[in-house]
Amino acid sequence: MTTIAIESREREQLIDITDEVSKLVRGVASGVVWLHCPHTTAALTIQENADPALREDYLEHLAKLVPQPGFRHDEGNADAHIKASLIGTTQPVLVEDGKLVLGRWQAVYFVELDGPRRREVVARVQKA
Amino acid sequence: MTTIAIESREREQLIDITDEVSKLVRGVASGVVWLHCPHTTAALTIQENADPALREDYLEHLAKLVPQPGFRHDEGNADAHIKASLIGTTQPVLVEDGKLVLGRWQAVYFVELDGPRRREVVARVQKA
Amino acid sequence: MTTIAIESREREQLIDITDEVSKLVRGVASGVVWLHCPHTTAALTIQENADPALREDYLEHLAKLVPQPGFRHDEGNADAHIKASLIGTTQPVLVEDGKLVLGRWQAVYFVELDGPRRREVVARVQKA
Repeated sequence: MTTIAIESREREQLIDITDEVSKLVRGVASGVVWLHCPHTTAALTIQENADPALREDYLEHLAKLVPQPGFRHDEGNADAHIKASLIGTTQPVLVEDGKLVLGRWQAVYFVELDGPRRREVVARVQKA
Repeated sequence: MTTIAIESREREQLIDITDEVSKLVRGVASGVVWLHCPHTTAALTIQENADPALREDYLEHLAKLVPQPGFRHDEGNADAHIKASLIGTTQPVLVEDGKLVLGRWQAVYFVELDGPRRREVVARVQKA
Repeated sequence: MTTIAIESREREQLIDITDEVSKLVRGVASGVVWLHCPHTTAALTIQENADPALREDYLEHLAKLVPQPGFRHDEGNADAHIKASLIGTTQPVLVEDGKLVLGRWQAVYFVELDGPRRREVVARVQKA
């Protein structure tokens, strides 16, 4: 098991970790790389990697669906906890021939929802 | 690794792929079948398979939560990308005695969010 | 494969099953515990376990995003089916040194969305 270190710079930010994850699976003929976000105000997702405007759309629309104010939880980040559960914190990615099995436009993103913070993603390669 | 070919007929459509997935696991005593949607405007989910009205409710309510217009992304399908991330693109299903481990009312659905298109789902059987 | 029995007491309730899941992985040096919710009006998630107010925030906000009335499905629980798909029904959790790989504030929750009912979660330990 290893960890991928992440440093976010915004409260809400999509951080592409595909390259870091890809490095872990070089030489793996077949298997899965398990990714888990151990934080409760961040998540992992697979999303389109081509258009930066889409990433802004994504974060802004999530903020409309789950606005920051209006909750009992007194740390001001209930929105981040709720979004994290909806997006998900565990993202396994299939591996074949030393590469991640992703579509042409897919990338693996760490979704910061209550930054900026130092974060980490737990990763484990499972060979078939 | 294999692929399941799908041809959607609507912009938004729930397509039951349980039978195709079940065929892949015949004879597998124990394991997991990994399913991954390599597209960024479609997803995979497990949902109730009994009432067609529920599937309309599902797609219509998703369209209320994430309407099509109003985004920067200029391909007119930002909604589909956002929904895909919330629903999820990777769906492993447990296998036992040659069958999928699903509840009585559960089916595996390919969720088309920007069709109609030719699509595929990546599948890999992992034996225990 | 085993099952974890659950008895919910509210229509919507977050039930912490971390202890029950932890018992299944004692002595497992490395692996994964697979959890699957075989019901179509309940789900599984990893969420913050410290503040009870946050769990109320979570369930109340989900009810705002997907209200109970207004659907075609005539059993009065279309909202529960839709939420279950968004939250997800399959939650694998990594295991190392006999313990679940979770962050300090993370717990595994069964998300009841149409209780009160007797429920179960399917669990399988996969050793590395």
